[in-house]
Amino acid sequence: MYERFQHQLQRLKNNRIFELFVVSVIIISALEIGAKTYDLPGWAALITQYLDVFITLFFLFEITIRFLAEPNKKGFFRSGWNVFDTLVVVISLIPVQDSEMALLARLVRVFRVLRMVSVIPELRVLINSLIKALPQLGYVVLLMFIIFYIYAAIGSYLFKDINPVLWGNIAISMLTLFRVMTFEDWTDIQYETMDVYPMSWMYYMSFIFFTAFAFLNMVIGIVVNVMEEEHTRARQEDAETREPTLGELQAQLNDVQRMLKTLTDNQSNDRESLK
Amino acid sequence: MYERFQHQLQRLKNNRIFELFVVSVIIISALEIGAKTYDLPGWAALITQYLDVFITLFFLFEITIRFLAEPNKKGFFRSGWNVFDTLVVVISLIPVQDSEMALLARLVRVFRVLRMVSVIPELRVLINSLIKALPQLGYVVLLMFIIFYIYAAIGSYLFKDINPVLWGNIAISMLTLFRVMTFEDWTDIQYETMDVYPMSWMYYMSFIFFTAFAFLNMVIGIVVNVMEEEHTRARQEDAETREPTLGELQAQLNDVQRMLKTLTDNQSNDRESLK
Amino acid sequence: MYERFQHQLQRLKNNRIFELFVVSVIIISALEIGAKTYDLPGWAALITQYLDVFITLFFLFEITIRFLAEPNKKGFFRSGWNVFDTLVVVISLIPVQDSEMALLARLVRVFRVLRMVSVIPELRVLINSLIKALPQLGYVVLLMFIIFYIYAAIGSYLFKDINPVLWGNIAISMLTLFRVMTFEDWTDIQYETMDVYPMSWMYYMSFIFFTAFAFLNMVIGIVVNVMEEEHTRARQEDAETREPTLGELQAQLNDVQRMLKTLTDNQSNDRESLK
Amino acid sequence: MYERFQHQLQRLKNNRIFELFVVSVIIISALEIGAKTYDLPGWAALITQYLDVFITLFFLFEITIRFLAEPNKKGFFRSGWNVFDTLVVVISLIPVQDSEMALLARLVRVFRVLRMVSVIPELRVLINSLIKALPQLGYVVLLMFIIFYIYAAIGSYLFKDINPVLWGNIAISMLTLFRVMTFEDWTDIQYETMDVYPMSWMYYMSFIFFTAFAFLNMVIGIVVNVMEEEHTRARQEDAETREPTLGELQAQLNDVQRMLKTLTDNQSNDRESLK
Repeated sequence: MYERFQHQLQRLKNNRIFELFVVSVIIISALEIGAKTYDLPGWAALITQYLDVFITLFFLFEITIRFLAEPNKKGFFRSGWNVFDTLVVVISLIPVQDSEMALLARLVRVFRVLRMVSVIPELRVLINSLIKALPQLGYVVLLMFIIFYIYAAIGSYLFKDINPVLWGNIAISMLTLFRVMTFEDWTDIQYETMDVYPMSWMYYMSFIFFTAFAFLNMVIGIVVNVMEEEHTRARQEDAETREPTLGELQAQLNDVQRMLKTLTDNQSNDRESLK
Repeated sequence: MYERFQHQLQRLKNNRIFELFVVSVIIISALEIGAKTYDLPGWAALITQYLDVFITLFFLFEITIRFLAEPNKKGFFRSGWNVFDTLVVVISLIPVQDSEMALLARLVRVFRVLRMVSVIPELRVLINSLIKALPQLGYVVLLMFIIFYIYAAIGSYLFKDINPVLWGNIAISMLTLFRVMTFEDWTDIQYETMDVYPMSWMYYMSFIFFTAFAFLNMVIGIVVNVMEEEHTRARQEDAETREPTLGELQAQLNDVQRMLKTLTDNQSNDRESLK
Repeated sequence: MYERFQHQLQRLKNNRIFELFVVSVIIISALEIGAKTYDLPGWAALITQYLDVFITLFFLFEITIRFLAEPNKKGFFRSGWNVFDTLVVVISLIPVQDSEMALLARLVRVFRVLRMVSVIPELRVLINSLIKALPQLGYVVLLMFIIFYIYAAIGSYLFKDINPVLWGNIAISMLTLFRVMTFEDWTDIQYETMDVYPMSWMYYMSFIFFTAFAFLNMVIGIVVNVMEEEHTRARQEDAETREPTLGELQAQLNDVQRMLKTLTDNQSNDRESLK
Repeated sequence: MYERFQHQLQRLKNNRIFELFVVSVIIISALEIGAKTYDLPGWAALITQYLDVFITLFFLFEITIRFLAEPNKKGFFRSGWNVFDTLVVVISLIPVQDSEMALLARLVRVFRVLRMVSVIPELRVLINSLIKALPQLGYVVLLMFIIFYIYAAIGSYLFKDINPVLWGNIAISMLTLFRVMTFEDWTDIQYETMDVYPMSWMYYMSFIFFTAFAFLNMVIGIVVNVMEEEHTRARQEDAETREPTLGELQAQLNDVQRMLKTLTDNQSNDRESLK
């Protein structure tokens, strides 16, 4: 009997109208989150409050259905997306009184918008490919961090007394260097230190050069990666169509040669015997 | 008789001198639009006024010819460029008195310059390819919008009281985030919020990271797309030249093997019969 | 006798030491140009003056040799680099008294540094390839200009009264838009107009979007172009090594089939006659 | 006996735990460098002092082992990484009293973090590939320098009196132009000079255009380079798998044709003799 119930749940879950309804509720929840950033009149604020309760309950309902419909209960939480959905729903359920926690509760509700990604398959593919690309960039990121760290240490040692707000310690210095990398008012920082160390432009120049180069390397790395995947994919497609390989043609030619060998040998035997 | 008239119109439309004249009038109209942004002396302002009337009438004349020359009247408005041309001409014809509308009329006239695109085929191809590329980027744009929306909601919740001009509501916050993405004085915004939330640099860093990554993804997507099209085109060209495929060579080899088989069989038969 | 003289000139022109000396003089001329931007003591200023005369005379000497050594005098001025070199030398020769012209004379002398490009072949190749790429980008640049023109006209009509320094006429507006495209304090401009037209952020957003897209298109165009050239070059190399084509293999197979046909026909004839 | 000792040292050097310990000490040294940028309480400062001595001695110990373990002592200093490691260690050993030198000593210690690169092979490969790419870019960098030099000279001649802080001499001007290239408040510089020379926007526009173009050229050059390497690598892999070449197939076909020739010739001889 439970199985029949589970089967019905699965049908509901995969129902197109139900799917559309889920997406609609997520969009409404996103709009509600946006609306709450405005100063709303009393009645509208009340609506958002009721809406909030409705959305929370609906999400709880939807995740319960998806969990019950899943034949393999353990496998359910193996998917990162399911864990994420459950966390967002569960945290939304915790009742909040004091204002400190209210802000946190609001922030958690914002992540409901991310459920859009978990619901639309194309976006899920995109995010997955982004995550998959990360480890490949690992060493370039590490190199970049080392560059940042060294320059931040040097900057902190040399420029601390010039402007402690920008170069006070290694953490602040790294933030300042990130600002230099984005070219945001970096010359103001440079002119300030050049008053004391006239050659300090070399510090900024070399830093910009190194980070730009490392960044370029990263981008090229990704592009080459993507293209290699494309190539592999294209080759596999070619292999599926599929043309005979040169190797197969060679095998056939070998066969032809063997047959001709037999023919010629026989012929010469015949000629010998005829003589 | 009407058909003879239509034929003459088509000849006029495709006449090289007429085409050049149309382009000239569009360029003059562009120059006039530019000239009107300067403070002109009375006589010059008068000239632009007469010129305006002439250009409007000429464009009306030209679009009428193109419409009459078209054998299939319904098909005429299927082309987006024709609809655009007609709209610009028709709106220019509406007489305007009050100054409010005068500004709008002026703005519509500016779009006459876009007629340059509709007249030069190479530019039309370029614009068409831009428009064709848009839907392919749809999901990346949607992902980017979701990132913006979530960060704008968080920013609005957290930083509203710090600076309502920048973080007043979700719309303003999105504008501010676009500013952050262009690195335009983004550190000023960051330092302001770091006074209250010292860890808020993580908010900006992660935002810049995500948008940069999504943007990079978009660019790579386009590049890979363009190259795939190139490949497909190149393959088709190869197929047209065209070398025999390995498959065809294999067919021929099969034929050779069959023939050799016959030869050898016959030979062995002969030898049997001779014995 | 003139030919023998010309031959000797050619030998001098192609002499490695002479070539090195020419490069040295160009470098010295570059250093002198740099030195003159500093406030020099009297004796140093005197040296640069004498050096200037020497460099001018040496360049005149070198270009004369190159001209005399050239067998085909008309062909000499067909090379853009020769025309450029001659112009720089000739203008340097004009005696200058009044200070207005002195500045111009100085500026012309700066272009002597460009002679470095005309002397080093690798740089000449680079510049030539840049110039060759320009016409291919023609239509994208035209499209970009049209976008700038239209937005500048609109900006000038709408924002002239808000800030005439930035939007006074179409030329100033285009300069302002270039500034917006480089993201340089563009939000200051935006906030100013948003006070009057709250929706004017759409103007900037759409402009940034269009120009970024057109720019991207341009870059991709160049990349695809470069790669196609690479492909063509690679194919030609392949054709030179060179493997037999499938077509040639097919011709050989046809030959094999013809020969087998003969063999089989003869055999069957023999068998018929034997019976 | 020395060889046995050397063998043991090599075993120690390649010991996985020893390698991990070296990496740990480098990380600790990096953390210590970072910690010293903060205002530390007395006891912590004391710890860093002792740590410093320990790290210096350990690095001396490690480099000594690596040197002794090396069978070919001359080859040891042929590797740039070994020279770098030795220099960092040796300079750390010099005792420092006066505060001027103390700063220098601190800076040298920062480069210990770079030892991370010399220890992790993947990072070493990355750095090596960066260094290898440099000479290929040589001419583009030279061209860019010439562009900078010419514009700096012109800028210095024309704008020196307008703002000597930005255009005082050719060196300062080049720094200012680098700032223009990064779009950092470049319009402020432009508006200042446009007050005197209204056409000076052409100076900035053309400069931005040329440098952007040269930069683009550089990037494309690197990308094409990387891809060519990929192609070469892919071809070599193909050659290793490996399919027979068309040339080999042709050789076999030639053989088939030769054999058929013999067959046909023999057959015709037989038929002649039979007649």
